[in-house]
Amino acid sequence: MELLKQKIRNEGMVLSETVLKVDSFLNHQIDPNLMNEVGQEFAHLFKNDGITKVLTIESSGIAPGLMAAFHLNVPVIFARKRKSLTLMNDLLTASVHSFTKQETTEISVSKQYIGKGDRILIIDDFLANGQAAFGLIDIVLATQAEVTGIGIVIEKAFQSGGQQLRDSGYRVESLARIKSLKNKQVQFIEETGAAVK
Amino acid sequence: MELLKQKIRNEGMVLSETVLKVDSFLNHQIDPNLMNEVGQEFAHLFKNDGITKVLTIESSGIAPGLMAAFHLNVPVIFARKRKSLTLMNDLLTASVHSFTKQETTEISVSKQYIGKGDRILIIDDFLANGQAAFGLIDIVLATQAEVTGIGIVIEKAFQSGGQQLRDSGYRVESLARIKSLKNKQVQFIEETGAAVK
Repeated sequence: MELLKQKIRNEGMVLSETVLKVDSFLNHQIDPNLMNEVGQEFAHLFKNDGITKVLTIESSGIAPGLMAAFHLNVPVIFARKRKSLTLMNDLLTASVHSFTKQETTEISVSKQYIGKGDRILIIDDFLANGQAAFGLIDIVLATQAEVTGIGIVIEKAFQSGGQQLRDSGYRVESLARIKSLKNKQVQFIEETGAAVK
Repeated sequence: MELLKQKIRNEGMVLSETVLKVDSFLNHQIDPNLMNEVGQEFAHLFKNDGITKVLTIESSGIAPGLMAAFHLNVPVIFARKRKSLTLMNDLLTASVHSFTKQETTEISVSKQYIGKGDRILIIDDFLANGQAAFGLIDIVLATQAEVTGIGIVIEKAFQSGGQQLRDSGYRVESLARIKSLKNKQVQFIEETGAAVK
Protein backbone atom coordinates (compact mmCIF):
# COMPACT_ATOMS: atom_id res chain seq x y z
CA MET A 1 0.00 0.00 0.00
CA GLU A 2 1.89 2.99 -1.34
CA LEU A 3 0.32 5.68 0.87
CA LEU A 4 1.29 3.74 3.98
CA LYS A 5 4.84 3.17 2.77
CA GLN A 6 5.21 6.89 2.04
CA LYS A 7 4.01 7.68 5.55
CA ILE A 8 6.53 5.21 7.02
CA ARG A 9 9.32 6.68 4.87
CA ASN A 10 8.45 10.26 5.80
CA GLU A 11 7.52 9.90 9.47
CA GLY A 12 8.80 6.55 10.75
CA MET A 13 11.71 6.68 13.17
CA VAL A 14 14.13 3.76 13.21
CA LEU A 15 15.15 3.40 16.85
CA SER A 16 17.22 0.24 16.38
CA GLU A 17 17.60 -2.63 13.93
CA THR A 18 14.32 -4.07 15.25
CA VAL A 19 12.28 -1.09 16.44
CA LEU A 20 10.39 1.26 14.13
CA LYS A 21 8.46 4.03 15.83
CA VAL A 22 5.36 5.27 14.01
CA ASP A 23 3.84 7.35 16.80
CA SER A 24 2.87 10.20 14.49
CA PHE A 25 0.18 8.27 12.59
CA LEU A 26 -0.50 4.86 14.17
CA ASN A 27 0.67 4.17 17.72
CA HIS A 28 0.01 7.42 19.58
CA GLN A 29 -1.27 10.05 17.21
CA ILE A 30 -3.48 8.45 14.55
CA ASP A 31 -4.13 9.72 11.03
CA PRO A 32 -7.83 8.91 10.53
CA ASN A 33 -7.72 9.30 6.74
CA LEU A 34 -4.84 6.85 6.49
CA MET A 35 -6.69 4.45 8.80
CA ASN A 36 -9.75 4.75 6.59
CA GLU A 37 -7.63 3.79 3.55
CA VAL A 38 -6.06 0.94 5.54
CA GLY A 39 -9.53 -0.31 6.48
CA GLN A 40 -10.70 -0.08 2.87
CA GLU A 41 -7.68 -2.04 1.71
CA PHE A 42 -8.28 -4.83 4.24
CA ALA A 43 -11.96 -4.92 3.29
CA HIS A 44 -10.98 -5.17 -0.36
CA LEU A 45 -8.47 -7.96 0.26
CA PHE A 46 -10.93 -10.07 2.27
CA LYS A 47 -14.19 -9.09 0.60
CA ASN A 48 -14.89 -12.56 -0.79
CA ASP A 49 -14.16 -14.46 2.42
CA GLY A 50 -17.45 -14.13 4.22
CA ILE A 51 -15.88 -12.41 7.24
CA THR A 52 -18.39 -12.13 10.11
CA LYS A 53 -16.20 -10.41 12.71
CA VAL A 54 -12.91 -8.62 13.03
CA LEU A 55 -10.76 -9.47 16.07
CA THR A 56 -7.95 -7.19 17.21
CA ILE A 57 -6.08 -6.32 20.38
CA GLU A 58 -5.89 -3.11 22.41
CA SER A 59 -4.73 -0.45 21.96
CA SER A 60 -3.00 0.05 18.64
CA GLY A 61 -5.04 -2.58 16.81
CA ILE A 62 -8.30 -0.76 17.48
CA ALA A 63 -8.00 1.96 14.83
CA PRO A 64 -7.13 -0.29 11.84
CA GLY A 65 -9.49 -2.99 13.18
CA LEU A 66 -12.39 -0.56 13.48
CA MET A 67 -11.90 0.82 9.98
CA ALA A 68 -11.60 -2.66 8.47
CA ALA A 69 -14.78 -3.70 10.29
CA PHE A 70 -16.53 -0.52 9.14
CA HIS A 71 -15.78 -1.24 5.49
CA LEU A 72 -16.62 -4.95 5.86
CA ASN A 73 -19.82 -3.96 7.69
CA VAL A 74 -19.21 -6.37 10.59
CA PRO A 75 -18.49 -5.83 14.32
CA VAL A 76 -14.94 -5.63 15.69
CA ILE A 77 -13.90 -7.12 19.02
CA PHE A 78 -10.76 -5.99 20.79
CA ALA A 79 -8.98 -8.40 23.10
CA ARG A 80 -8.23 -6.92 26.49
CA LYS A 81 -4.75 -7.08 27.92
CA ARG A 82 -5.94 -7.59 31.47
CA LYS A 83 -9.17 -8.24 33.24
CA SER A 84 -11.35 -5.32 34.14
CA LEU A 85 -14.11 -5.15 36.68
CA THR A 86 -16.86 -5.06 34.08
CA LEU A 87 -15.42 -7.84 31.91
CA MET A 88 -15.06 -10.91 34.08
CA ASN A 89 -17.13 -13.89 33.11
CA ASP A 90 -16.66 -16.55 30.49
CA LEU A 91 -13.34 -15.35 29.22
CA LEU A 92 -11.20 -16.94 26.57
CA THR A 93 -7.57 -16.19 27.42
CA ALA A 94 -4.10 -16.60 25.95
CA SER A 95 -0.60 -15.53 26.98
CA VAL A 96 1.27 -13.11 24.75
CA HIS A 97 4.92 -12.21 25.14
CA SER A 98 5.98 -8.79 23.90
CA PHE A 99 9.64 -8.62 22.91
CA THR A 100 9.41 -4.83 22.63
CA LYS A 101 8.08 -4.40 26.15
CA GLN A 102 9.85 -7.49 27.54
CA GLU A 103 6.79 -8.78 29.34
CA THR A 104 4.13 -11.45 29.13
CA THR A 105 0.53 -10.32 29.19
CA GLU A 106 -2.68 -12.27 29.45
CA ILE A 107 -5.12 -11.31 26.72
CA SER A 108 -8.81 -12.10 26.95
CA VAL A 109 -12.00 -12.08 24.92
CA SER A 110 -15.51 -12.75 26.18
CA LYS A 111 -16.93 -16.07 24.92
CA GLN A 112 -20.12 -14.20 24.21
CA TYR A 113 -18.85 -12.52 21.07
CA ILE A 114 -17.17 -15.33 19.11
CA GLY A 115 -18.81 -18.62 18.28
CA LYS A 116 -19.71 -21.33 15.83
CA GLY A 117 -20.06 -20.10 12.27
CA ASP A 118 -17.96 -17.00 12.81
CA ARG A 119 -15.33 -16.34 10.18
CA ILE A 120 -12.76 -14.17 11.92
CA LEU A 121 -10.41 -11.66 10.36
CA ILE A 122 -7.57 -10.89 12.78
CA ILE A 123 -6.17 -7.37 12.41
CA ASP A 124 -3.13 -5.91 14.14
CA ASP A 125 -0.86 -2.90 13.75
CA PHE A 126 2.48 -4.75 13.75
CA LEU A 127 3.63 -8.29 13.07
CA ALA A 128 7.09 -9.18 14.34
CA ASN A 129 7.47 -12.47 16.20
CA GLY A 130 3.81 -13.29 15.78
CA GLN A 131 3.10 -13.59 19.50
CA ALA A 132 -0.03 -11.44 19.48
CA ALA A 133 -1.38 -13.09 16.31
CA PHE A 134 -0.84 -16.61 17.69
CA GLY A 135 -2.49 -15.54 20.95
CA LEU A 136 -5.53 -14.29 19.05
CA ILE A 137 -5.57 -17.49 16.97
CA ASP A 138 -5.50 -19.58 20.18
CA ILE A 139 -8.53 -17.67 21.39
CA VAL A 140 -10.46 -18.22 18.15
CA LEU A 141 -9.51 -21.93 18.05
CA ALA A 142 -10.87 -22.35 21.58
CA THR A 143 -14.31 -21.56 20.11
CA GLN A 144 -15.95 -23.19 17.12
CA ALA A 145 -15.12 -20.20 14.96
CA GLU A 146 -12.59 -20.10 12.15
CA VAL A 147 -9.59 -17.84 11.50
CA THR A 148 -10.26 -16.78 7.94
CA GLY A 149 -7.35 -14.41 7.54
CA ILE A 150 -4.86 -12.11 9.19
CA GLY A 151 -4.42 -8.48 8.17
CA ILE A 152 -1.35 -6.59 9.35
CA VAL A 153 -0.58 -2.91 8.86
CA ILE A 154 3.24 -3.20 9.14
CA GLU A 155 5.07 -6.52 9.00
CA LYS A 156 8.69 -6.71 10.11
CA ALA A 157 9.42 -9.44 7.62
CA PHE A 158 12.97 -9.91 8.97
CA GLN A 159 11.41 -11.39 12.10
CA SER A 160 9.85 -14.81 12.04
CA GLY A 161 6.15 -14.26 12.82
CA GLY A 162 4.92 -13.83 9.26
CA GLN A 163 6.71 -16.94 8.03
CA GLN A 164 5.45 -19.00 10.97
CA LEU A 165 1.86 -17.91 10.39
CA ARG A 166 2.06 -18.61 6.64
CA ASP A 167 3.74 -21.98 7.30
CA SER A 168 0.84 -22.79 9.64
CA GLY A 169 -1.52 -22.29 6.69
CA TYR A 170 -2.90 -18.87 7.49
CA ARG A 171 -3.43 -16.22 4.85
CA VAL A 172 -1.51 -13.16 6.02
CA GLU A 173 -1.94 -9.86 4.19
CA SER A 174 0.47 -7.13 5.27
CA LEU A 175 0.04 -3.64 3.84
CA ALA A 176 3.74 -2.81 4.27
CA ARG A 177 6.45 -5.47 4.60
CA ILE A 178 9.77 -4.32 5.95
CA LYS A 179 12.84 -6.24 4.89
CA SER A 180 15.35 -4.47 7.08
CA LEU A 181 15.83 -1.59 9.51
CA LYS A 182 19.62 -1.71 9.31
CA ASN A 183 21.65 1.50 9.14
CA LYS A 184 18.64 3.52 10.30
CA GLN A 185 16.97 2.83 6.97
CA VAL A 186 13.60 1.30 6.23
CA GLN A 187 13.87 -1.17 3.38
CA PHE A 188 10.62 -2.59 2.09
CA ILE A 189 10.32 -6.00 0.46
CA GLU A 190 10.33 -5.73 -3.34
CA GLU A 191 11.37 -2.13 -3.13
CA THR A 192 14.65 -0.34 -3.59
CA GLY A 193 14.42 0.99 -0.05
CA ALA A 194 14.21 4.57 1.06
CA ALA A 195 16.03 6.35 3.83
CA VAL A 196 14.01 7.66 6.73
CA LYS A 197 14.98 10.16 9.37
CA MET B 1 -28.67 10.74 20.06
CA GLU B 2 -31.57 8.38 19.58
CA LEU B 3 -29.71 5.52 17.88
CA LEU B 4 -27.25 5.37 20.78
CA LYS B 5 -30.01 5.45 23.40
CA GLN B 6 -31.79 2.59 21.62
CA LYS B 7 -28.59 0.59 21.66
CA ILE B 8 -28.14 1.26 25.38
CA ARG B 9 -31.77 0.29 26.07
CA ASN B 10 -31.52 -2.90 24.02
CA GLU B 11 -28.03 -4.11 24.87
CA GLY B 12 -26.81 -2.28 27.97
CA MET B 13 -26.52 -4.33 31.16
CA VAL B 14 -27.04 -2.59 34.47
CA LEU B 15 -24.63 -4.31 36.86
CA SER B 16 -25.27 -1.99 39.82
CA GLU B 17 -26.64 1.47 40.54
CA THR B 18 -23.41 2.93 39.17
CA VAL B 19 -22.14 0.42 36.58
CA LEU B 20 -23.57 0.10 33.06
CA LYS B 21 -21.91 -2.50 30.87
CA VAL B 22 -21.99 -1.82 27.14
CA ASP B 23 -19.54 -4.48 26.02
CA SER B 24 -21.59 -5.48 22.99
CA PHE B 25 -21.10 -2.23 21.07
CA LEU B 26 -18.55 0.04 22.78
CA ASN B 27 -16.20 -1.40 25.40
CA HIS B 28 -15.24 -4.82 24.03
CA GLN B 29 -17.13 -5.52 20.84
CA ILE B 30 -17.58 -2.31 18.84
CA ASP B 31 -20.34 -1.49 16.38
CA PRO B 32 -18.48 0.42 13.64
CA ASN B 33 -21.63 1.88 12.09
CA LEU B 34 -22.75 3.25 15.44
CA MET B 35 -19.25 4.65 16.02
CA ASN B 36 -19.39 6.31 12.61
CA GLU B 37 -22.68 7.98 13.58
CA VAL B 38 -21.22 8.97 16.95
CA GLY B 39 -18.22 10.49 15.16
CA GLN B 40 -20.48 12.36 12.74
CA GLU B 41 -22.53 13.73 15.62
CA PHE B 42 -19.44 15.01 17.47
CA ALA B 43 -18.13 16.53 14.24
CA HIS B 44 -21.49 18.23 13.72
CA LEU B 45 -21.62 19.58 17.29
CA PHE B 46 -18.09 21.03 17.15
CA LYS B 47 -17.89 21.91 13.45
CA ASN B 48 -17.64 25.68 14.03
CA ASP B 49 -15.02 25.52 16.75
CA GLY B 50 -11.85 25.28 14.69
CA ILE B 51 -10.81 21.97 16.28
CA THR B 52 -7.24 21.06 15.26
CA LYS B 53 -6.87 17.77 17.17
CA VAL B 54 -8.92 15.21 19.02
CA LEU B 55 -7.48 13.88 22.29
CA THR B 56 -8.76 10.68 23.86
CA ILE B 57 -7.52 7.90 26.15
CA GLU B 58 -6.89 4.23 25.53
CA SER B 59 -8.62 1.90 25.00
CA SER B 60 -12.33 2.60 24.83
CA GLY B 61 -11.95 6.21 23.78
CA ILE B 62 -10.11 5.28 20.60
CA ALA B 63 -13.12 4.19 18.51
CA PRO B 64 -15.31 7.26 19.12
CA GLY B 65 -12.23 9.52 19.08
CA LEU B 66 -11.05 8.13 15.74
CA MET B 67 -14.46 8.52 14.11
CA ALA B 68 -14.87 12.08 15.45
CA ALA B 69 -11.39 12.93 14.12
CA PHE B 70 -12.21 11.32 10.78
CA HIS B 71 -15.30 13.46 10.32
CA LEU B 72 -13.54 16.60 11.57
CA ASN B 73 -10.60 15.77 9.29
CA VAL B 74 -7.99 16.22 12.03
CA PRO B 75 -5.60 13.79 13.77
CA VAL B 76 -6.52 12.00 17.01
CA ILE B 77 -4.06 11.36 19.83
CA PHE B 78 -4.70 8.71 22.44
CA ALA B 79 -3.20 9.14 25.90
CA ARG B 80 -1.34 6.06 27.08
CA LYS B 81 -2.08 4.56 30.46
CA ARG B 82 1.52 3.61 31.10
CA LYS B 83 4.87 4.20 29.57
CA SER B 84 5.99 1.95 26.77
CA LEU B 85 9.48 1.36 25.48
CA THR B 86 8.88 3.29 22.28
CA LEU B 87 7.15 6.26 23.94
CA MET B 88 9.47 7.69 26.54
CA ASN B 89 10.69 11.21 25.95
CA ASP B 90 9.07 14.54 26.61
CA LEU B 91 5.91 13.21 28.15
CA LEU B 92 3.06 15.22 29.57
CA THR B 93 1.54 13.20 32.39
CA ALA B 94 -1.42 13.28 34.77
CA SER B 95 -2.82 10.95 37.41
CA VAL B 96 -6.27 9.48 36.88
CA HIS B 97 -8.21 7.55 39.48
CA SER B 98 -10.70 5.00 38.20
CA PHE B 99 -13.54 4.32 40.62
CA THR B 100 -14.66 1.35 38.52
CA LYS B 101 -11.27 -0.30 38.63
CA GLN B 102 -10.30 1.12 42.04
CA GLU B 103 -6.87 2.17 40.93
CA THR B 104 -4.84 5.23 40.02
CA THR B 105 -3.12 5.25 36.66
CA GLU B 106 -0.62 7.63 35.17
CA ILE B 107 -1.68 8.79 31.72
CA SER B 108 0.75 10.33 29.29
CA VAL B 109 0.89 12.16 25.98
CA SER B 110 3.99 13.08 24.03
CA LYS B 111 4.69 16.83 23.99
CA GLN B 112 5.40 16.49 20.31
CA TYR B 113 1.75 16.25 19.29
CA ILE B 114 0.06 19.07 21.22
CA GLY B 115 1.22 22.65 21.20
CA LYS B 116 0.51 26.34 20.83
CA GLY B 117 -2.43 27.10 18.58
CA ASP B 118 -4.02 23.69 18.97
CA ARG B 119 -7.73 23.68 19.72
CA ILE B 120 -8.36 20.34 21.37
CA LEU B 121 -11.57 18.35 21.42
CA ILE B 122 -11.43 15.78 24.23
CA ILE B 123 -13.47 12.63 23.50
CA ASP B 124 -14.17 9.75 25.87
CA ASP B 125 -16.56 6.82 26.06
CA PHE B 126 -17.89 7.45 29.57
CA LEU B 127 -18.09 10.42 31.91
CA ALA B 128 -18.75 9.61 35.57
CA ASN B 129 -16.59 11.37 38.16
CA GLY B 130 -14.68 13.23 35.49
CA GLN B 131 -11.27 11.90 36.53
CA ALA B 132 -10.16 10.96 33.02
CA ALA B 133 -11.46 14.23 31.52
CA PHE B 134 -9.72 16.34 34.17
CA GLY B 135 -6.53 14.34 33.59
CA LEU B 136 -6.69 15.04 29.87
CA ILE B 137 -7.44 18.73 30.57
CA ASP B 138 -4.39 18.91 32.87
CA ILE B 139 -2.28 17.57 30.02
CA VAL B 140 -3.61 20.11 27.53
CA LEU B 141 -3.21 22.99 30.01
CA ALA B 142 0.45 22.02 30.50
CA THR B 143 0.96 23.00 26.85
CA GLN B 144 -0.05 26.25 25.19
CA ALA B 145 -3.03 24.55 23.57
CA GLU B 146 -6.67 25.13 24.44
CA VAL B 147 -9.45 22.74 25.48
CA THR B 148 -12.17 23.75 23.06
CA GLY B 149 -14.73 21.17 24.04
CA ILE B 150 -15.43 17.78 25.55
CA GLY B 151 -17.47 15.10 23.77
CA ILE B 152 -18.75 12.13 25.75
CA VAL B 153 -20.57 9.09 24.41
CA ILE B 154 -22.37 8.16 27.65
CA GLU B 155 -22.58 10.49 30.65
CA LYS B 156 -23.63 9.12 34.01
CA ALA B 157 -25.26 12.41 34.94
CA PHE B 158 -26.03 11.18 38.47
CA GLN B 159 -22.29 11.35 39.15
CA SER B 160 -20.55 14.67 39.56
CA GLY B 161 -18.05 14.83 36.67
CA GLY B 162 -20.29 16.51 34.11
CA GLN B 163 -21.40 19.21 36.55
CA GLN B 164 -17.83 19.87 37.68
CA LEU B 165 -16.62 20.21 34.10
CA ARG B 166 -19.47 22.54 33.15
CA ASP B 167 -18.95 24.58 36.35
CA SER B 168 -15.31 24.91 35.35
CA GLY B 169 -16.47 26.56 32.11
CA TYR B 170 -16.00 23.69 29.69
CA ARG B 171 -18.51 22.89 26.99
CA VAL B 172 -19.50 19.25 27.49
CA GLU B 173 -21.61 17.50 24.86
CA SER B 174 -22.82 14.04 25.87
CA LEU B 175 -24.68 11.94 23.31
CA ALA B 176 -26.60 10.02 25.99
CA ARG B 177 -27.10 11.35 29.52
CA ILE B 178 -28.17 8.84 32.12
CA LYS B 179 -30.19 10.12 35.05
CA SER B 180 -30.30 6.88 37.02
CA LEU B 181 -29.44 3.19 36.94
CA LYS B 182 -31.65 2.36 39.92
CA ASN B 183 -33.77 -0.81 39.92
CA LYS B 184 -31.75 -2.22 37.01
CA GLN B 185 -33.27 0.42 34.76
CA VAL B 186 -31.59 2.96 32.56
CA GLN B 187 -33.31 6.31 32.84
CA PHE B 188 -32.15 9.00 30.46
CA ILE B 189 -32.35 12.72 31.23
CA GLU B 190 -35.42 14.34 29.61
CA GLU B 191 -36.78 10.94 28.79
CA THR B 192 -39.42 8.74 30.32
CA GLY B 193 -36.82 6.02 30.87
CA ALA B 194 -36.86 2.55 29.47
CA ALA B 195 -36.16 -0.75 31.14
CA VAL B 196 -33.14 -2.68 30.05
CA LYS B 197 -32.18 -6.26 30.61
